[in-house]
Amino acid sequence: MTTLEFFWDVASPYTYLASTQIPGLRARTGAQIVCRPFLLGGVFKSTGNVMPAEVPAKAAYMLKDLARWRDRYQIPFRLPGDAPFPLNSVLAQRVATAADLAGQGEQFMHAVMRAYWGEAKDISDPAVIAQVVSENGFSADLLAAAQSQAVKDRLRANSDEAVERGAFGAPAFFLGGELYWGNDQLPHLEALLQKP
Amino acid sequence: MTTLEFFWDVASPYTYLASTQIPGLRARTGAQIVCRPFLLGGVFKSTGNVMPAEVPAKAAYMLKDLARWRDRYQIPFRLPGDAPFPLNSVLAQRVATAADLAGQGEQFMHAVMRAYWGEAKDISDPAVIAQVVSENGFSADLLAAAQSQAVKDRLRANSDEAVERGAFGAPAFFLGGELYWGNDQLPHLEALLQKP
Repeated sequence: MTTLEFFWDVASPYTYLASTQIPGLRARTGAQIVCRPFLLGGVFKSTGNVMPAEVPAKAAYMLKDLARWRDRYQIPFRLPGDAPFPLNSVLAQRVATAADLAGQGEQFMHAVMRAYWGEAKDISDPAVIAQVVSENGFSADLLAAAQSQAVKDRLRANSDEAVERGAFGAPAFFLGGELYWGNDQLPHLEALLQKP
Repeated sequence: MTTLEFFWDVASPYTYLASTQIPGLRARTGAQIVCRPFLLGGVFKSTGNVMPAEVPAKAAYMLKDLARWRDRYQIPFRLPGDAPFPLNSVLAQRVATAADLAGQGEQFMHAVMRAYWGEAKDISDPAVIAQVVSENGFSADLLAAAQSQAVKDRLRANSDEAVERGAFGAPAFFLGGELYWGNDQLPHLEALLQKP
């Protein structure tokens, strides 16, 4: 069975866009899709890359481009600036890693993405993350587990591995050993996944 | 009639990719497509943007991504590094501007793109540009015109106008007053051009 890996950080708006397409992609292709939390800030630091929003003209364009994708995908999407942005996503990604280790990683990804990008909740706030955990039926144990050294190490290892395999931004997909960067790679990935 | 503007600089590999799709896009949509030379280096300077290739991991990824696009489009394409890169495109863009003022701008664009990206010729060399001009049936007068103040001013004005309208990179498309950035916007632009 073909496996597509999807490295995600809730802080990235284009990663939110891509995350909303994962269930449909899986249903249409039958591919195994593995969602792996990482820390985009760490990836930027390791690679010398910067947030696209650091160039003002690019930031202005991105808002328009994101709105176009929202319309194409027909998803709830509070754009950056409406949702608090940029976001410190360390806590969210640690809870996501704890959820992943508990076999609930993708469910938590969708829940935290929806809270932040769909509802503009400030998920850098521990009380808000606790709410996301409880309202979506996850165990409160995830909050304690998120502070464990094992979870911190795993999240860092995911980020380091992504960088070692060539990632410099998000979303970062890997298929057949190759990196595909960005939400707009999804049609190409779907075509590859449909090949016999 | 709907008009799509295409700001191009031969120095940009993604702009080469997009340029090869212009004739087909025009044929399929009936849109008027206006190709306008500009200077990407000036756009970067004005906006504080940098070449994507300045981040090593991104540069490595771009080579793979460009090769994928070459295969999708089935076009001759000598990738950056095979073609001399980065390229000083000032002379080429000045001759392109002279050609544009003579009503031959798009023909020259395709000729100079083919010489550089298709055949890896060093078009920063005046002798090579002279060869591109003569071998493709353009008048040698373009070479003298390219050094005129009128042409230099026009090229700078195109670049300044693109920046004023929001551009920060290439290719920069404008449709209905809106910026669309990058080769991968072409399917979206084609869909918009086909709307009644």
